[in-house]
Amino acid sequence: MAEVFRLPIQIRFAHCDPAGIVFYPRYFELINGVVEDWCAQGLGMSFHEMHVVKDIGLPTVHIETDFVKTSILGDQLTAELRVLKLGRASVTVEIKMLGPQQDLRLRAELVLVMAHVEQRKAIAFPEILREQMQKYVVA
Amino acid sequence: MAEVFRLPIQIRFAHCDPAGIVFYPRYFELINGVVEDWCAQGLGMSFHEMHVVKDIGLPTVHIETDFVKTSILGDQLTAELRVLKLGRASVTVEIKMLGPQQDLRLRAELVLVMAHVEQRKAIAFPEILREQMQKYVVA
Amino acid sequence: MAEVFRLPIQIRFAHCDPAGIVFYPRYFELINGVVEDWCAQGLGMSFHEMHVVKDIGLPTVHIETDFVKTSILGDQLTAELRVLKLGRASVTVEIKMLGPQQDLRLRAELVLVMAHVEQRKAIAFPEILREQMQKYVVA
Amino acid sequence: MAEVFRLPIQIRFAHCDPAGIVFYPRYFELINGVVEDWCAQGLGMSFHEMHVVKDIGLPTVHIETDFVKTSILGDQLTAELRVLKLGRASVTVEIKMLGPQQDLRLRAELVLVMAHVEQRKAIAFPEILREQMQKYVVA
Repeated sequence: MAEVFRLPIQIRFAHCDPAGIVFYPRYFELINGVVEDWCAQGLGMSFHEMHVVKDIGLPTVHIETDFVKTSILGDQLTAELRVLKLGRASVTVEIKMLGPQQDLRLRAELVLVMAHVEQRKAIAFPEILREQMQKYVVA
Repeated sequence: MAEVFRLPIQIRFAHCDPAGIVFYPRYFELINGVVEDWCAQGLGMSFHEMHVVKDIGLPTVHIETDFVKTSILGDQLTAELRVLKLGRASVTVEIKMLGPQQDLRLRAELVLVMAHVEQRKAIAFPEILREQMQKYVVA
Repeated sequence: MAEVFRLPIQIRFAHCDPAGIVFYPRYFELINGVVEDWCAQGLGMSFHEMHVVKDIGLPTVHIETDFVKTSILGDQLTAELRVLKLGRASVTVEIKMLGPQQDLRLRAELVLVMAHVEQRKAIAFPEILREQMQKYVVA
Repeated sequence: MAEVFRLPIQIRFAHCDPAGIVFYPRYFELINGVVEDWCAQGLGMSFHEMHVVKDIGLPTVHIETDFVKTSILGDQLTAELRVLKLGRASVTVEIKMLGPQQDLRLRAELVLVMAHVEQRKAIAFPEILREQMQKYVVA
């Protein structure tokens, strides 16, 4: 049974637009934060370790998102991350954000690529990272 | 022949991340700005008129994006917007960002829905807006 | 003895600039989040209750900030909020952010004004809010 | 007679909050953009040249701001930058944002320091930069 990485998300004033709902570019900051915390807490390799220590990164090369239902100031959401596909140097993850009644607010699918920052080229995942990612692969 | 809405985009310090390239959520702020300026300059109805005067808006319900090539601090890009599909209350637009050599940096496809903000429901496009959008529909 | 409102702050990838340190406008988003959580958790009146239910808000009319020491990706900071001065319709708060060794990263002083959003004018604090703020006033 | 660096500022949807006015951290992104364009257009040394080519930067170590009057979606502002004080490695600038009727929206005073990014220490301004800054010093 695949693991699911879950993270609480608080919709803040800073996320909301003049219509009183989340301005969608802010959702992508939150989505990036989910990936960031997944790496640190779920995979055991923080963005700090990647970027500052190892000079590697996990840029997003493709993302598609359905904004199913709006969220407003003060909403307490839950993010869920699953791995849909794991390759040698890229991983496809699904991120959902759910409301308090488990109602779907958005569903995103991202392709992330392991890259050497300085050289700006894709590299294979470090084995330790790949092994951890494996646990989140949906059957 | 369909019109193309073009806009210069300056990659600023505020857009860039520790890897020295555009942090992808910032691209969505820029993409939203392209839609915003298209409405004001290309369609003749500004976000101010929509949101403040008419209480209508154009929320994004779906977006998919390929980040083809990275952009760095100081890059001068050109955004291009075309209409792929025009419905009664929704419109599918394609936005490309191109580098100085016309090299593709990203391609996004967005579905925008005309909505009444207060009532939070989709409504048909005002006829004047729909007519203007028609000019940008790709054959 | 005055209470101090404390909040953990995680420096994320989204906060950092090409120099690898926090881009200072992001600090102000974090500072706004400290005020937001202070209202909800420290004073018992959330921004949601203010903005969505009561149509009141707490805009910042003055802020001054010393950026004493830089913060980098992954830093775990602690924010501290104290009230320096409490008026009829305005409050002066001090917010500090400290590193893991209690080293000062920044110190900000903000003047916040209670305002009716629709009417765009200052109003006296609701008594219940003012009473709670009183607890955080530094002697 | 000192020169004044002026820049048009368009208040976008992305800048505005649920109260329909500019969310103040966004003003600091705009203020940073004014400094950025001043360096490139007013001083002849872009942030790209500083950060990417020379590995130097101009971090903000102090900022104080009065938010005098709110701005809303669609407002066309003008930013004005003047130099109040020019030191060996630091410069104090004043930035004002004005509405269409020259009404003051905000006034900020920033202390910027010339720094070597990699070494994280202050350095004297390159002479060519200092000479250009001199033109903007208010008598």
